[in-house]
Amino acid sequence: MAPANTQAGIQAAHRANLLKAFSIPPGSRVLEIGCGQGDCTAVLAEHLGPTGFVDAIDPAPLDYGAPQTLGEAQAELISNPQFGSRISFHQRAPEDFLAGAQQQGIVYSAAVLCHCLWYFSSPTLVLGTLKALRGSAKRLCIAEWSLSSPHQAAQPHIMAAIARATCEAHIPDSDQNIRSLLSPSAIKNLAMDAGWSLAEEGKVTPAEGLADAKWEVEMLLADNEYGVVRRGQERVGASDVERAKVLVVLESMVGVVKESMENISSGQSAGPLRCMDVWWGNFE
Amino acid sequence: MAPANTQAGIQAAHRANLLKAFSIPPGSRVLEIGCGQGDCTAVLAEHLGPTGFVDAIDPAPLDYGAPQTLGEAQAELISNPQFGSRISFHQRAPEDFLAGAQQQGIVYSAAVLCHCLWYFSSPTLVLGTLKALRGSAKRLCIAEWSLSSPHQAAQPHIMAAIARATCEAHIPDSDQNIRSLLSPSAIKNLAMDAGWSLAEEGKVTPAEGLADAKWEVEMLLADNEYGVVRRGQERVGASDVERAKVLVVLESMVGVVKESMENISSGQSAGPLRCMDVWWGNFE
Repeated sequence: MAPANTQAGIQAAHRANLLKAFSIPPGSRVLEIGCGQGDCTAVLAEHLGPTGFVDAIDPAPLDYGAPQTLGEAQAELISNPQFGSRISFHQRAPEDFLAGAQQQGIVYSAAVLCHCLWYFSSPTLVLGTLKALRGSAKRLCIAEWSLSSPHQAAQPHIMAAIARATCEAHIPDSDQNIRSLLSPSAIKNLAMDAGWSLAEEGKVTPAEGLADAKWEVEMLLADNEYGVVRRGQERVGASDVERAKVLVVLESMVGVVKESMENISSGQSAGPLRCMDVWWGNFE
Repeated sequence: MAPANTQAGIQAAHRANLLKAFSIPPGSRVLEIGCGQGDCTAVLAEHLGPTGFVDAIDPAPLDYGAPQTLGEAQAELISNPQFGSRISFHQRAPEDFLAGAQQQGIVYSAAVLCHCLWYFSSPTLVLGTLKALRGSAKRLCIAEWSLSSPHQAAQPHIMAAIARATCEAHIPDSDQNIRSLLSPSAIKNLAMDAGWSLAEEGKVTPAEGLADAKWEVEMLLADNEYGVVRRGQERVGASDVERAKVLVVLESMVGVVKESMENISSGQSAGPLRCMDVWWGNFE
């Protein structure tokens, strides 16, 4: 694991906290959906021990991501002497990969979806994937941002996520990182529709140093501060009136993030910017 | 003023706090835009004293509102022996009324817009009104919900307002009470575009008992909990895909309000539901 005081170390510790909630026994064969650069995969592989294995899939192009690309990050993990041999990365769409696994009669001990549902291009695709997992995994372990927090200093993160998702909802071919803003209850509804039963759920409050809130807010305020508003300017709605009104709501959401960040910098808010809570659920 | 421990008393005390921020001298002639049932008008008339006067205008039908209609509430205030004679109510659109006032050469000491901007049917209409006020009032005193709060227990109010506004933005002929969700910075930008300069601004944290948060959240969760989502089902966007995605975001916003209200009822959140802060600005 990376040193605890680096961002990589904090990210790894965050994933380890979520994994603890999933209670997956060492030695399990696990399917990870939406592994991205492998932040969760590495922690999983370490946790599963020498007799465990992770099939980690993500449809994103291997040249996606900066400063390290997906392909570079994954190659580095596979070459890790301690746990690299317990991981197999697959650049495949989940439903496509699962069809193959079912043909081969593979049933995983658990399917893990950790901070990946918001990246799905639509809730319909989430539902299809959760349905396809029914025959391929005994348990379903999901973790996603909860849109709530006991800390006031997490409000910019929550509002930034809502603003970005509100904009992207209008852009059918969006490639941004929040395309399906699903709340915990929306996720539970989809999982139940797919045939899963909730066994256990909870929330994790991330450590202060976790940088996701900072990244999300910076992405929102980048591009001359109202990039997300401009991004919606050509695409939103059926009419000029609808577009103009949605853009005002978007602009106000961005204004709120900007103002709360100013309160944080000027010390008017309690403590530095924090990440919102993560909700997790185990389904059977 | 109504007894301090009743909702009418708490509403009056809230308006009195905002009026204090406006620093309008007794004896002034004031124009109040969007007076509604006259909650602010009454406090203004009392404050202005025997030599002051309020022209209070609102375009809403006099049979609007429950349990008391606008007309009934206004009639009651006019008949108040202490300050009724200092008020004149006008059922007129602001721009229309202002055109008449300018013809007569009336210049008000101050124009007050207290919790009315979100009711405007569009930000364009807000801009037009603020421009029309340039020649008719020496000062502009605005108060509106700020979309922020130092209290965690105000988050359901903030999120409920955003959810309702996001839905109404798609409904051109909406008659709902949040049609222009303007943040403090959006309001300041409109006022500056209209030729006004900000002289002073601040925020007021409402008292715990102010019921507006409860009303807003109840309205959102009423109608089988997802009324605001169903309301958008026939109207949102240019395509089925756009509509479906916006509705998921809306559903998640409602889910967050519902969940945070459950945390409040179960005692998991600090204290009872509270109203968000009110931002106020004085312009010259």
